[in-house]
Amino acid sequence: MGVHDAMYVLGGKWKIYIITALLFGSKRYSELLRDVQGISGKVLSRELKEMETNRLVKRTVSVTQPVTVTYELTEYGKSAKSIIGVLSEWGETHRNLIVIDEPL
Amino acid sequence: MGVHDAMYVLGGKWKIYIITALLFGSKRYSELLRDVQGISGKVLSRELKEMETNRLVKRTVSVTQPVTVTYELTEYGKSAKSIIGVLSEWGETHRNLIVIDEPL
Repeated sequence: MGVHDAMYVLGGKWKIYIITALLFGSKRYSELLRDVQGISGKVLSRELKEMETNRLVKRTVSVTQPVTVTYELTEYGKSAKSIIGVLSEWGETHRNLIVIDEPL
Repeated sequence: MGVHDAMYVLGGKWKIYIITALLFGSKRYSELLRDVQGISGKVLSRELKEMETNRLVKRTVSVTQPVTVTYELTEYGKSAKSIIGVLSEWGETHRNLIVIDEPL
């Protein structure tokens, strides 16, 4: 089933956030570490490696001094934008529900 | 951000699958345990409790002999269908990509 495939590739706590952080362009590792709130360096490295294996992100090493490592979404990774859009919209609605349901 | 709210309510390994299992109508606890592949009784109970707190599911106890406990999606829970639809579609596409990329 498609849902299983999607959850296999995107599941877990972080990948959706990493994709969100990369939606507007490539970022250095250090920028991702700053932008994905709460993630540790160890976990970020592991997640990025998995996402590279699944071809969601492309890793580029520039031979600068010091070496710069940047990550960007592949076309395929960008396609997950549709999921993030729906999640975002649904989340906004949920937040409104919570507000409405609070005692006055 | 909406994505955070959605991930807060739907995140983790199981909720999307539980919602999927309930999309076509209410189910008993034992039916859910069978239909959500790989979940343990303990985890299913915990997840259902969280989903009840977040008003994604409604729990009904029928005073039969023995007592029957059924779960159904609330209107709000049903609204997550849009997310599952996009995940499913995206997952199908991903599966196709994998097949294409396999060595001949």
